[in-house]
Amino acid sequence: MKPPALSRHLPILEWGRRYDRADLGGDLMAAAIVTIMLIPQSLAYALLAGLPPEAGIYASIAPILVYAIFGTSGALAVGPVAVVSLMTAAAVGNTAAQGIAGYATAALSLALMSGLMLLALGTMRLGFLANFLSHPVISGFVSASGILIAASQLRHLLGLAGDGETLPQILPQLARNLPGIHLPTLILGGATTAFLFWARGGLRPFLQRIGLPRRMAELGARTGPVLAIAATTVAVWAFDLGHRGVALVGDVPRGLPPLTMPSFSPDLLSALVVPAMLISVIGFVESISVAQTLAARRRQRIDPDQELIGLGGANIAAAFTGGFPVTGGFSRSVVNDDAGARTPAAGAFTAAGLALAALFLTPLVQLLPKATLAATIIVAVTSLVDLSILRRAWNFSRADFAAVTVTMLLTLLAGVETGVSAGVATSILVHLYKTSRPHMAVVGRVPGTQHFRNVLRHQVETHPHILSLRVDESLYFPNARFLEDRLAGLVAERPALTDVVLMFPAVNEIDLSALESLEAINSRLSDAGIRLHLSEVKGPVMDRLRCCRFLDELTGHVYLSQHEAICALAPRNPQKDEGAA
Amino acid sequence: MKPPALSRHLPILEWGRRYDRADLGGDLMAAAIVTIMLIPQSLAYALLAGLPPEAGIYASIAPILVYAIFGTSGALAVGPVAVVSLMTAAAVGNTAAQGIAGYATAALSLALMSGLMLLALGTMRLGFLANFLSHPVISGFVSASGILIAASQLRHLLGLAGDGETLPQILPQLARNLPGIHLPTLILGGATTAFLFWARGGLRPFLQRIGLPRRMAELGARTGPVLAIAATTVAVWAFDLGHRGVALVGDVPRGLPPLTMPSFSPDLLSALVVPAMLISVIGFVESISVAQTLAARRRQRIDPDQELIGLGGANIAAAFTGGFPVTGGFSRSVVNDDAGARTPAAGAFTAAGLALAALFLTPLVQLLPKATLAATIIVAVTSLVDLSILRRAWNFSRADFAAVTVTMLLTLLAGVETGVSAGVATSILVHLYKTSRPHMAVVGRVPGTQHFRNVLRHQVETHPHILSLRVDESLYFPNARFLEDRLAGLVAERPALTDVVLMFPAVNEIDLSALESLEAINSRLSDAGIRLHLSEVKGPVMDRLRCCRFLDELTGHVYLSQHEAICALAPRNPQKDEGAA
Repeated sequence: MKPPALSRHLPILEWGRRYDRADLGGDLMAAAIVTIMLIPQSLAYALLAGLPPEAGIYASIAPILVYAIFGTSGALAVGPVAVVSLMTAAAVGNTAAQGIAGYATAALSLALMSGLMLLALGTMRLGFLANFLSHPVISGFVSASGILIAASQLRHLLGLAGDGETLPQILPQLARNLPGIHLPTLILGGATTAFLFWARGGLRPFLQRIGLPRRMAELGARTGPVLAIAATTVAVWAFDLGHRGVALVGDVPRGLPPLTMPSFSPDLLSALVVPAMLISVIGFVESISVAQTLAARRRQRIDPDQELIGLGGANIAAAFTGGFPVTGGFSRSVVNDDAGARTPAAGAFTAAGLALAALFLTPLVQLLPKATLAATIIVAVTSLVDLSILRRAWNFSRADFAAVTVTMLLTLLAGVETGVSAGVATSILVHLYKTSRPHMAVVGRVPGTQHFRNVLRHQVETHPHILSLRVDESLYFPNARFLEDRLAGLVAERPALTDVVLMFPAVNEIDLSALESLEAINSRLSDAGIRLHLSEVKGPVMDRLRCCRFLDELTGHVYLSQHEAICALAPRNPQKDEGAA
Repeated sequence: MKPPALSRHLPILEWGRRYDRADLGGDLMAAAIVTIMLIPQSLAYALLAGLPPEAGIYASIAPILVYAIFGTSGALAVGPVAVVSLMTAAAVGNTAAQGIAGYATAALSLALMSGLMLLALGTMRLGFLANFLSHPVISGFVSASGILIAASQLRHLLGLAGDGETLPQILPQLARNLPGIHLPTLILGGATTAFLFWARGGLRPFLQRIGLPRRMAELGARTGPVLAIAATTVAVWAFDLGHRGVALVGDVPRGLPPLTMPSFSPDLLSALVVPAMLISVIGFVESISVAQTLAARRRQRIDPDQELIGLGGANIAAAFTGGFPVTGGFSRSVVNDDAGARTPAAGAFTAAGLALAALFLTPLVQLLPKATLAATIIVAVTSLVDLSILRRAWNFSRADFAAVTVTMLLTLLAGVETGVSAGVATSILVHLYKTSRPHMAVVGRVPGTQHFRNVLRHQVETHPHILSLRVDESLYFPNARFLEDRLAGLVAERPALTDVVLMFPAVNEIDLSALESLEAINSRLSDAGIRLHLSEVKGPVMDRLRCCRFLDELTGHVYLSQHEAICALAPRNPQKDEGAA
């Protein structure tokens, strides 16, 4: 018997004990396919992050192993992903440009900080913080990142020099350099892009048509990027394109990931705090969404706090083995799952496959054109761009639309960090704004019933000396004073008023600020000769009110139902309609 | 007829038209009393803010006039107040110590920025932002400020030199300088303090005992600080205490407030942004609480956004007439109200009174000991310190207690700005944390009824293939993913499950994130062969769900009541208790 706490933090103890031949078969198959898929992706995302290609391979070995020990998802495939690589380029490019540290070392430090933050969040069970990244913000951010990434890779397709992290930096530069287009690169890159776009939809039916069984054809369709790499490498070799000016990946050291040491320079670390935080949260959110979707298919569940620990460990591993920030990737996890991965061991086998690639395949990469990798990236990120979120948010609510728009525009125009921070700030502000002005309705009785409805929407009975106000939101500090204001206004309009009844059927919670507002309301109404009553107070709210003197000081009563309140306060002679008062 | 918009922004047009003799009588009487009260307070708070005494008088003239034009409260008396003066000292001391600008000029700039911010908030109707300063944070902040202020004035009572803005700065310094106590100052200061403490409770009964009518005695009791000033000034003159080392206020220029120009140095302004923001919000909250309390007594109401404009104008006026940040003060507004102030004209008359004082009384202040002003301040701020909020918050909830404690400790130990910022951050974080983990209950039917209750608290009927989950909170991005997690866990525990019913009677609102979570839940459950149903969905939530495809994609139904849902899904054979499954 293992103690439960230990196996909660080391899920491998749990699934490892039950591991069997069927698991092994599924995991090995999945690992083989994911390895083939990960090689081009790793090289491409390293390029996107501004790092040498081998860093992408390294970032896919030790992190996967560590995640296999600490992670809870059997299907999640950890490694470099597009959005996080873009964010890495932005963060590291910034510090390296300032000369604070070497580029590659800064990437290691970024991975380390991001890993430590994830680990801390997981250990302190603070995974809920990621929830403040709302869906509209994530959608907007991911779409805008996709556009930024595609724009940043265009120059590789065109054989142009350049850099830049925002559209206002990238596009004018691209336009200026346009006369210098390198035709062989453009042809190679254009053809590869066209092939990859076709392969996404057309390779599987094609393979089936030429006789492969459905299952094989499906797997074969995943090899599009590998085929593109092979074909373009052969083309470079055959036509000696390297000497004709096509930019190549060039020498890649052969061997297992090196042991590396991140920089602990205080200047560097302080410059990377905010980017590391954003990368942690974005990476976590991306990863957890995939993991939850895949786990649900099998009625399994994943533990978000333990996922933080798993991803934290993976990033720390990346920091010490020549990598850069990693997280669970969407497409490769889906492939992993489809291909039959059953446990995190699939990840360990993938790591082994990549280690073999690092040992034996890297010399082949020497002649690989950068344009091929750029094409791989561009085709991969088009699936990230989903502008329908704009229409969807607009139809749903202006608040969500504001969050999406701010996030997208600022990401495109001012960069990833500004975009995502502004998005989070916007959605928190909008949320605070909305809850600060809760819906409240003056109600009256529907004649002949015990039901009370909004006087503005229904023909109801009211009394000139009674004001019944239904509060449709929990009461807490953002809206406590709003209730005071609203009530002050309603009371000022009603000179004959003697009794106010607050209906609390939708008040799920009350905090000290709201309690003090209620006390202020009670004493102000009392000064004006008006009694305050409550009705339909929920149990937990009543418990709160009981633990202080409010109920003793309340000038009126607490009624179980609004009907009971009105019966007690106005036994007869209601007036038919508020407007007739 | 005036256009309503104009008289909303110029309340003087509204009350000015109806002004009559009765108003005039009340306003003049109140003005006379408040003027007498404001003279010592103005001098004292200028001392507290680190400014020459006349600045306090100046800060009480033009700002009151401007507030009288734009403000909506008939009773509010605007001028320097203790907490804002302390914050001014902290903010201005900081920039002056850095040599960015002269002390007095920085105070003008601070008033200007604070005024512009208030004006902007009012014009943009963003007064609700002040609500994010929760009651516990304000209480903790005001109490801690009171302690800080009293501690900072002790040295004047003891005749010691020194400065400092936090307890760790003030107390050790005081202890080190203790051997240098100046005995005449201590006697004078001690006696004044004792008299003022006595006067607060004892002067009114004493005046009544010596034969004054009740009403006169009440008003006479307010003159304690003026009596103290007169008596100690006479004592200084009689015993030549100035030459015996008692620190005096000294020469005060005679005349109306000068026209002054704040500094617009970018360095200064950027150093003052955060303090100005905090001063604006704290000042506004203090002011609005008083104004609302006083308005409610007469069944009047004040317009918070227009109050922002009034206070903004007052601060801008202070900036151009040699003042410093001002706001509506609690005690003087209560006195103003008690003394019969009926309209903002009372403020205008007070301004006239103070202008006369500035013209004719300032020479008398020359011999006033600083210890007297310190005693006035110390006695005034003791009413701010209310440590019972700690016990109250502890009893009410740990969340509110955390907010109070963080605010108080950080205010005392790290200063006013850190304290209030940390308090706001804590209460927002705690609020987000709480709403991110809403209460949800698995429910079953109370046998023989149509009521559904928590399975953990009641003996209820459930079905092994149906899961009914009641959500006790609105669903939005902070808690959307929590619902996904919770449901994933519940589903994983129930292998026989075929139907999930989410009960939404307490869901007041839903945002796009929550909608997408519901869509994810729907599609994940569908993958696992489980249908999703909703029940008891409120109108506004249903409206939201209708404006997208969710209801089309929903695998189950939306039921009006949970009873209806269970009848449709499980016509017979419930099991008696969840535990027996």
